Amino acid sequence: MPQPYLLFLGDTTERGYAKTALGLRDWAPEKCVGEYVLPGATVSTGLERLTPAEAQARGARALLIGVANSGGVISESWLPALVEALEAGLDIVSGMHMRLAELPGLADLAGRLERQLIDVRHPPRGLSVGSGRKRSGMRLLTVGTDCALGKKYTALAIARAFAARGLDADFRATGQTGIMIAGGGIPMDAVVSDFEAGAAEAISPDAEPGHWDVIEGQGSLFHPSYAAVSLGLLHGSQPDVIVVCHQPGRTEVMGRPGYALPSIEETIDLNLRLGGRTNPAIRCAGVSFNTAHMDAEEAAALMAAESARLGMPVADPIRGGDAFDRLVDACLA
Amino acid sequence: MPQPYLLFLGDTTERGYAKTALGLRDWAPEKCVGEYVLPGATVSTGLERLTPAEAQARGARALLIGVANSGGVISESWLPALVEALEAGLDIVSGMHMRLAELPGLADLAGRLERQLIDVRHPPRGLSVGSGRKRSGMRLLTVGTDCALGKKYTALAIARAFAARGLDADFRATGQTGIMIAGGGIPMDAVVSDFEAGAAEAISPDAEPGHWDVIEGQGSLFHPSYAAVSLGLLHGSQPDVIVVCHQPGRTEVMGRPGYALPSIEETIDLNLRLGGRTNPAIRCAGVSFNTAHMDAEEAAALMAAESARLGMPVADPIRGGDAFDRLVDACLA
Repeated sequence: MPQPYLLFLGDTTERGYAKTALGLRDWAPEKCVGEYVLPGATVSTGLERLTPAEAQARGARALLIGVANSGGVISESWLPALVEALEAGLDIVSGMHMRLAELPGLADLAGRLERQLIDVRHPPRGLSVGSGRKRSGMRLLTVGTDCALGKKYTALAIARAFAARGLDADFRATGQTGIMIAGGGIPMDAVVSDFEAGAAEAISPDAEPGHWDVIEGQGSLFHPSYAAVSLGLLHGSQPDVIVVCHQPGRTEVMGRPGYALPSIEETIDLNLRLGGRTNPAIRCAGVSFNTAHMDAEEAAALMAAESARLGMPVADPIRGGDAFDRLVDACLA
Repeated sequence: MPQPYLLFLGDTTERGYAKTALGLRDWAPEKCVGEYVLPGATVSTGLERLTPAEAQARGARALLIGVANSGGVISESWLPALVEALEAGLDIVSGMHMRLAELPGLADLAGRLERQLIDVRHPPRGLSVGSGRKRSGMRLLTVGTDCALGKKYTALAIARAFAARGLDADFRATGQTGIMIAGGGIPMDAVVSDFEAGAAEAISPDAEPGHWDVIEGQGSLFHPSYAAVSLGLLHGSQPDVIVVCHQPGRTEVMGRPGYALPSIEETIDLNLRLGGRTNPAIRCAGVSFNTAHMDAEEAAALMAAESARLGMPVADPIRGGDAFDRLVDACLA
């Protein structure tokens, strides 16, 4: 992937839609030279505002579409900005469902200028079905009680903590934002279901005995729409360790009213039972809480109480601290 | 789908590869006017041998590729026969992974002759993600301890038995052979995993309260390669009733040495636990045995013993008889 990036925010006014750009800023600031916004946008990453030409002069190699709107559609109103980027010598990287080449004229222009249009939401060709063969090296997978509550951030934080302890560890991306941060990976939700476990096997190949792959989880085994993605990823990842991610206070599946969120204990139990099929040594090291909506004292008290109740570490990786150190210890125990 | 069919067996010498043609002959004989084989073939459906022109004169509307070889490849050596079929006025129906249009010249010829090339292994465009919304009508799903042991035949036999009792019942196809038999359906293993449950919802839409959809199962929740397909199908089907399919004597997952087959009890338990997420009223009505490799007496004794042990009907739908009547009773209980 051509890096570093100029983060494109379009005309976005919803902070939640800018999660790709914000994820890049938080986890790969060395890959971000600035942001580019259109008139009307109210969201910012806080990075310096640059035109494509200015960004290119400072070393940027690609304009990255940092917006993840509902439906994954690339707005035609962005076309002039994308053309400007190509003409300034930048490639374009997108995580949308819609392909960049579907925008009228863009593929022709990119061809003439010898620039790349990179759609990371599209899996590689030639994936194999899963073999079920046990691979060498160690693997950790973040799993969840639901979608969109911190599986990617947790995996990134644990991979970083492993590296800080001198371990050989790789973050393995399974969604579009993670792929842009890592510079590689497979968008598991876009893989044909027959090849889902096989794609997960391809993401974390055989490695040295002391090596750790820290794999970004997707969805939830309890989600009525996306559990197939979660199970294929669990089987193919063959994790030695899982960390369960949860957002305190969430009681229903996001966007699926009437579907009660499973308890943390149920989530642990089902992931161990199903994951044990391809790795009988699987275990749960602890729980990651997303407490962004709570104040520090309230969050700390809740995590201490939940840790006592569950008998395992409970931490918010973004808050860090002793609780997170204990969670990392438990992963490596 | 254009019907009836002329069944094409190519130059096949492996009976197992002809399972699509044999499935059509067994379950939709009224849709088969004859067979067409190439020199060297040793497999036959027993139907009358006809040229495409003869078949067309007897009412055939399509040549159906009745071969399901490993890899799903359409041999170039079949091209003259496929051209002959188009020129005789037949469409072509294929369940291969490879598209018919990938054969050199075939799409051009079909266009000139205004004939259709139909690849049933490719899912429809515009599928939605699963909603999880409970639908009206009754649903039965066949599930299995493994792949390739009778889930399609069991669903077809139960749908037929329901109809014989005067019920309004539809067989719902989820694989290529089933789709050719039914004349419609979605190949679940070819659906992008994000849409797997949504595709299963689309296969069995809202229906009258007394209506039954009898849905062909795929794979197994215990299969290290294909469980994602099975779970998406289970969640989206929302079955009221499952029937567990098994082949006595099979002890390992087909093609995955070292993976022990789950017991029937484990298979029931896991399907009910996961299926209960989208339909809490799910129950197991009984077990379907594939006893093709046993003699009648041995099979009857084993099924009686297993029925007593499990406390539910155990029957081979192909053998039928009282045991199968009891299984059908239990589905409707």
